[in-house]
Amino acid sequence: MKSLNIPSLAACTLAACTLAALSLPSPAAAWEALPSKAPAPADNPTTPAKVELGKMLFFDPRLSSTGTVSCFSCHNVMEGGDDHRSTSIGVHGQKGGRNSPTVWNAAFHSVQFWDGRAASLEDQAKGPVTNPIEMGMSSLDLGVQRLRDIPGYKKPFESVFGPGESITIDNVAKAISAYERTLITPDSAYDRFVKGEHKALTPQQVRGMEAFSQAGCVACHSGPAFNGPVQPVGQGFYMKFPTYAANAYVAKYKLMDDAGRLVSTGKESDKNMWRVPTLRNLVYTAPYFHNGSVKTLDEAVRVMAKTQLDKDLSEPQVQDITAFLEALTGAFPVQTMPMLPPTPGTLLD
Amino acid sequence: MKSLNIPSLAACTLAACTLAALSLPSPAAAWEALPSKAPAPADNPTTPAKVELGKMLFFDPRLSSTGTVSCFSCHNVMEGGDDHRSTSIGVHGQKGGRNSPTVWNAAFHSVQFWDGRAASLEDQAKGPVTNPIEMGMSSLDLGVQRLRDIPGYKKPFESVFGPGESITIDNVAKAISAYERTLITPDSAYDRFVKGEHKALTPQQVRGMEAFSQAGCVACHSGPAFNGPVQPVGQGFYMKFPTYAANAYVAKYKLMDDAGRLVSTGKESDKNMWRVPTLRNLVYTAPYFHNGSVKTLDEAVRVMAKTQLDKDLSEPQVQDITAFLEALTGAFPVQTMPMLPPTPGTLLD
Repeated sequence: MKSLNIPSLAACTLAACTLAALSLPSPAAAWEALPSKAPAPADNPTTPAKVELGKMLFFDPRLSSTGTVSCFSCHNVMEGGDDHRSTSIGVHGQKGGRNSPTVWNAAFHSVQFWDGRAASLEDQAKGPVTNPIEMGMSSLDLGVQRLRDIPGYKKPFESVFGPGESITIDNVAKAISAYERTLITPDSAYDRFVKGEHKALTPQQVRGMEAFSQAGCVACHSGPAFNGPVQPVGQGFYMKFPTYAANAYVAKYKLMDDAGRLVSTGKESDKNMWRVPTLRNLVYTAPYFHNGSVKTLDEAVRVMAKTQLDKDLSEPQVQDITAFLEALTGAFPVQTMPMLPPTPGTLLD
Repeated sequence: MKSLNIPSLAACTLAACTLAALSLPSPAAAWEALPSKAPAPADNPTTPAKVELGKMLFFDPRLSSTGTVSCFSCHNVMEGGDDHRSTSIGVHGQKGGRNSPTVWNAAFHSVQFWDGRAASLEDQAKGPVTNPIEMGMSSLDLGVQRLRDIPGYKKPFESVFGPGESITIDNVAKAISAYERTLITPDSAYDRFVKGEHKALTPQQVRGMEAFSQAGCVACHSGPAFNGPVQPVGQGFYMKFPTYAANAYVAKYKLMDDAGRLVSTGKESDKNMWRVPTLRNLVYTAPYFHNGSVKTLDEAVRVMAKTQLDKDLSEPQVQDITAFLEALTGAFPVQTMPMLPPTPGTLLD
């Protein structure tokens, strides 16, 4: 590991910090490489058969009302784990309100969704199925019934979860989550650098790494996934975005139009609070922010410096930090395509 | 190869047969296994690099106006190569008029689309991109521009098609077609049986094979893909469906609502004419027929016997033929997922 100057948690005494954040341990005092494995909850150990079943379900559009939208539709693991769009499109061409967050390395988030409203991957997996503008099933029971009506799912579910009625929404969510815990992109130039391969980063990227630290970005974007200090699962690391709202970016990119975490909690203190997202693989996940309003990475750097740190970075600083962020692009593991069981002709209208 | 009683081409002197069909050689006098490779046109040889590029393009939703619909959306190669639906859904939730035909073994069709309006896979590949209710790009040029605007496509295109401006619609179509020519499902129980593995079929399936032949199904559904005698590419093997329209199935399943090949040619003689489709992997491609109106395979057998041969099969015959058709389910080759190049944030609205 390579130590650089890292600001203390002083940056987190800003009004932007939540009480939860204030009570947390300080961020890692060193740069950390991405682990090659993600932790799994005690009641959902990651096994090869479960991962394979989860991969089938992740790619299965029959979990949506029209049979056209799967997890994969908005979380394209063949690219950045998102859908290339500012906001997603679900069944019947309906447009959602938020940018699809990448599923790559989602296992390293302690809470899920932009606003952290799901306490785990397992909880998250159930959300889109019944969201009327995402997968549009009228109930989770109907989603499960779809799978029960596909005879070829019986055997893989039973081999993972045991005999009997093992096709349940909880098991569906467990399998999908197990698959998602394998979606890790280690071995970025940054990871190789912090493991001692000093030439893995270009001189500009090293300058960017230092600028990233010195400007204060690392106060929030710390840890191996650059999404804040490691938290217990279910406990979020939230920040207010924008923290500094007296700048032109806020109107230009409509940064306050969505009240963030307040929408799900109803608490005024959660207004414009968001989970600190990972910075890994940003090269693949444009456009940026919860509303996908910023199209380029260098502009995202400018906006964040101004709205979160009240800083006007010099153009060389912007370019250096951008170059550093590009070095967070990991190696995407080669995956085989799952084979899905046949569809009875009676399944869909 | 195993010879069974096969009706002569006498069945093809029905009014249903096209002149093209009448001028063709008689169907194979023996049951044929599926070739393990598909022929490629002289100007588009199948190479590993081209197949890999074609796979990327096949899975790339950025070829559609919304960035949400790829070839894969309606031709799900992780299942039966279709979309499980009666008719497909394209951009903006728009519903198409015909059932998605499977892309598995499409390389063995001499013409493409249900009505054979594309003379080759290469021609077919360009169709959906600009179809307003499929991928919805306003022009092929705009589709190509999308790919040119993705920097990561430059290198793979140049390595396959040579330096310079190699991202063209013709090269896109060539690459996709090269990939599709690898989508072959050999080694079904039927294939093993005709190669001499006599226990590969159950006794019921052997009875079904004989009934399939004796009833006359094989007059049209001959050849290794059961889509008629092998034709030169671009020359179709068409049949009228329904040939016998004086039965209740025609109204029940709306079999004459779509005029078939007439819609694209404008010729009255093409009314209700359709390309003879493959019978391979029917277990995976319910619901059936050009309008996806028939939900189960045994009902499809009843309908075909009545509308094409004017026969009322006995229920044991229906079940035996259905069992035989189930034996045409091939081995789907294991595929790795392509990795798509990153999306510039400026690519989509």
